[in-house]
Amino acid sequence: MKILIINSGSSSIKYQLMVMPANEVICTGMIDRIGLESSNVTFKTSTDSYEETVSIPTHKVGLQKVANMLLDAEKGVIKSTSEITAVGHRVVHGGSNFTDTVKIDEKVKAKIKQLFDLAPLHNPANLEGITVAEEIFHTADQIAVFDTAFHQTMPEVAYKFAIPNELLTEKRIRVYGFHGTSHKYVSEQAIKYLKGIRHAAQNIITIHLGNGCSMTAIKNGKSVDHSFGFGPTNGLIMGTRAGDVDQSVIFYMANSLGYSLDEINEILQKKSGMLGLTGYSDLRDIEANAEKGDKECQLALFMNAYRIRKFIGSYTAALNGLDAIVFTAGIGENSSYMRKLVCTDMEFFGIDIDDEENQIRSKEIREINKTTSKVKVLIVPTDEEYEIANQVYHLLQN
Amino acid sequence: MKILIINSGSSSIKYQLMVMPANEVICTGMIDRIGLESSNVTFKTSTDSYEETVSIPTHKVGLQKVANMLLDAEKGVIKSTSEITAVGHRVVHGGSNFTDTVKIDEKVKAKIKQLFDLAPLHNPANLEGITVAEEIFHTADQIAVFDTAFHQTMPEVAYKFAIPNELLTEKRIRVYGFHGTSHKYVSEQAIKYLKGIRHAAQNIITIHLGNGCSMTAIKNGKSVDHSFGFGPTNGLIMGTRAGDVDQSVIFYMANSLGYSLDEINEILQKKSGMLGLTGYSDLRDIEANAEKGDKECQLALFMNAYRIRKFIGSYTAALNGLDAIVFTAGIGENSSYMRKLVCTDMEFFGIDIDDEENQIRSKEIREINKTTSKVKVLIVPTDEEYEIANQVYHLLQN
Repeated sequence: MKILIINSGSSSIKYQLMVMPANEVICTGMIDRIGLESSNVTFKTSTDSYEETVSIPTHKVGLQKVANMLLDAEKGVIKSTSEITAVGHRVVHGGSNFTDTVKIDEKVKAKIKQLFDLAPLHNPANLEGITVAEEIFHTADQIAVFDTAFHQTMPEVAYKFAIPNELLTEKRIRVYGFHGTSHKYVSEQAIKYLKGIRHAAQNIITIHLGNGCSMTAIKNGKSVDHSFGFGPTNGLIMGTRAGDVDQSVIFYMANSLGYSLDEINEILQKKSGMLGLTGYSDLRDIEANAEKGDKECQLALFMNAYRIRKFIGSYTAALNGLDAIVFTAGIGENSSYMRKLVCTDMEFFGIDIDDEENQIRSKEIREINKTTSKVKVLIVPTDEEYEIANQVYHLLQN
Repeated sequence: MKILIINSGSSSIKYQLMVMPANEVICTGMIDRIGLESSNVTFKTSTDSYEETVSIPTHKVGLQKVANMLLDAEKGVIKSTSEITAVGHRVVHGGSNFTDTVKIDEKVKAKIKQLFDLAPLHNPANLEGITVAEEIFHTADQIAVFDTAFHQTMPEVAYKFAIPNELLTEKRIRVYGFHGTSHKYVSEQAIKYLKGIRHAAQNIITIHLGNGCSMTAIKNGKSVDHSFGFGPTNGLIMGTRAGDVDQSVIFYMANSLGYSLDEINEILQKKSGMLGLTGYSDLRDIEANAEKGDKECQLALFMNAYRIRKFIGSYTAALNGLDAIVFTAGIGENSSYMRKLVCTDMEFFGIDIDDEENQIRSKEIREINKTTSKVKVLIVPTDEEYEIANQVYHLLQN
């Protein structure tokens, strides 16, 4: 069956048309800068690709543009929208309501709307994408895949904050966790791999290092703790996000330094992290400068790795064991230097990386530990679109 | 020599007169509710003790009252203030300026004042105590012992936040750490004990569980990481303090729920922690209720222990090893149940507690692990007054 994956952001739409269960990508592309003067539109098949700049004022116009490209007489890949069996929508926030992928009906849409204030940048755009897709691909099932769903297996000790109980029961303040689709996919791939080589796969830590960075403690395939919390702001150091910061810093900046809350949020989200420490947000620039001897860049990389190491320790305690750590996403898959830093001085945990294996690039799952390492160190390329398509496919099969 | 220890809080003065190096306590006591209608004043020697309720409008009147009690013809312990060689002042915040105990002069006082905005509740009261003590005990050396000093050995990777560099260089926002006197004292006692039994003492984690709770990672006797950060607010769950909370929770409470920043701070400092989770702030009440089957109390204890376990894991990664963990302060020394919870499911780390040893109460340093446990689990009663007196004594000797 043909499944269209839609990832509708505040000013962008990413799409991918796939044949499942064959895992064949028919075409993929994106529209960005929706609502601005001009948008970039891309469309790519295995044999062809094109790009154009055009005005896309709304998500509705954008998704209609996607449909038109799919249906295009010359370059298109389908003859009718009815060829598409299902549209799989990435939805960022499913709250505590959604523990799994669901078929979208009015009730589901109402619940996604109820969560607007918990994900004000993402859920409205996700719902807009759903509403428009229902019109344009009206014969297709609309399915929602939530970024938070995988983490809903976390126990209370992990998801509760030590704040007054009514802030949880009445105001829904708790750890939700994000990047769930990626953590689920790479952990399942890792577990399959580990079982194949008859290595224990009970206690796994997945390390997603991309634009956003997060880690998950996984016990018997289930998320039991996670570094993002109420929002996708805490935990690891990211490109422009600070990750963990003392609450007292926020009160000090507001009360003693005179910053407004909006300014503080802007600083912590957009001017902190690697950018705040080095002036660069792209890890490749930072690594290049560090290699040339730039002290700030070197320190920022050490800080980044140090925090990841501390989370590995923390989650090993949560799991009371460690069988494998898994690197994924842009930085996790491509930065051999960051992986090396993370795996340095971790002998106590049984982590022993093989420097040569760590250098090899590949699009397949790879083991980069020494053969004597107690803990397996894996690179698992993430594939969120496939994971969404797969979940949609299985929902429709059952 | 006779050394008077002064711990001057915002509305209280604690004092203790000691003979050093004999470590003999001559008398001890406190004045609370300074500035309110009536204060409680206590005075206690090894043979005698009394209490009175009297109006103490200012710290100056309070410290004069202390002097009068010390000098009292009938119950007093000295004949002249000149018998006191030195006054040791506990000062909460020494910033990055003070890495050790110092003799107080005008420059030191100016620096303590410069740190008022980093410790608005504590440093002004500490400085007030110093100024008044200079008048009343004018022949004595005035010495400052800083709560932050022990942590000034932390490396940059541990004390820097991932925020714009100028917030550190211009606004002094970094991890300072607190409870330093206690962590220093108990770690030194632990290291002495471990060397005595020929056990490794390189990698130690000290766990201070009292009204405030904090943990320190200690490498070769030096603090290398610490759970309190910029203020004494983060890290572990405390009686009424939340400890670690997502930054996004603060922004959500302000922007979506309409709380003022002061209200949020009040909630996180005074209505959260064990109180927010259970309605009780005293651990003894919570343990008693948990034993009777109260689910909220049980969960709060599990959450508390879970967070401590995660910090043990995190600091074991920071240290790349673990030789001993050390429990101290009110809860750490007295709650066998909390120690048991912390040491449960920690086999990976080599922590194996002996249930019978864990039940025995003692005022001496004790080992409560099984003989086969790789990691030593110690209870070390803290003694901040002795540590302050000892530091004062050694400063004056050298």
